[in-house]
Amino acid sequence: MDIKFMNAALSEAKKAFEIGETPIGAVIVKDDKIIARAYNRRETKKNALMHAEISAIDKACRKLGGWRLCGCDMYVTLEPCPMCAGAIIQARIENVFFGAYDNKAGAFGSTCDLSGLLAHKVKATGGILEEQSSEIIKRFFKKLRKKEI
Amino acid sequence: MDIKFMNAALSEAKKAFEIGETPIGAVIVKDDKIIARAYNRRETKKNALMHAEISAIDKACRKLGGWRLCGCDMYVTLEPCPMCAGAIIQARIENVFFGAYDNKAGAFGSTCDLSGLLAHKVKATGGILEEQSSEIIKRFFKKLRKKEI
Repeated sequence: MDIKFMNAALSEAKKAFEIGETPIGAVIVKDDKIIARAYNRRETKKNALMHAEISAIDKACRKLGGWRLCGCDMYVTLEPCPMCAGAIIQARIENVFFGAYDNKAGAFGSTCDLSGLLAHKVKATGGILEEQSSEIIKRFFKKLRKKEI
Repeated sequence: MDIKFMNAALSEAKKAFEIGETPIGAVIVKDDKIIARAYNRRETKKNALMHAEISAIDKACRKLGGWRLCGCDMYVTLEPCPMCAGAIIQARIENVFFGAYDNKAGAFGSTCDLSGLLAHKVKATGGILEEQSSEIIKRFFKKLRKKEI
């Protein structure tokens, strides 16, 4: 775990914030280098699949030219939902480091734990830069309620 | 539930079989019409996300121009994995009808049940054209073991 990569995921979350999307960002790291960066664009793209994690996995598969992201870790600002946790498993990602916990949809411990369910096991660790990851989301919803977005 | 839509999903699975992919097919139905058809292309596209269900949801979102597939049902030949079950929930699909059960990765009852986990509930029904859905997958793996693929 290297905190600089969670900071990079937070930078992605900020990009989502700026365009009025729920601010969640993700990066995928291999051999100590970021190979994919993405942020949530569900509203902009009008597509249910466009969570940060899914877009990052899509980019990483294209970059590496294969569906197995062996030796790759993901850093993401919010605990992944079942879709994203499932995609992380499908892509054979080894470690997931996430920021804030999501008690409504988090699938690495909060609503269920998919990390050890299937043949490929993922090691998931939460609470990395938790406060910053959580704060940007709270700020977004505060703004949304004030109808500033 | 209309059996003709599961037959359409089976036709998609056959397309996957023909190109050497694990034969799983899916269709999305709205107002008694198929709005998206897709089949598994994980190997061909070298992408972990390219399960039949994900591709079908992607197509349906593009077709309807929004991320909420309200009033839509999915027919898929194999019980969805956590990634696909999660995507079905994210896309607000109402009913899922699946063919064969998947005791290794199925997420609507076999390894876990995601249908009622989050705020949006999905009604999932398995065993529709189960024998045909299962048989094509068995035939595929038999061929694979004989190295005919």
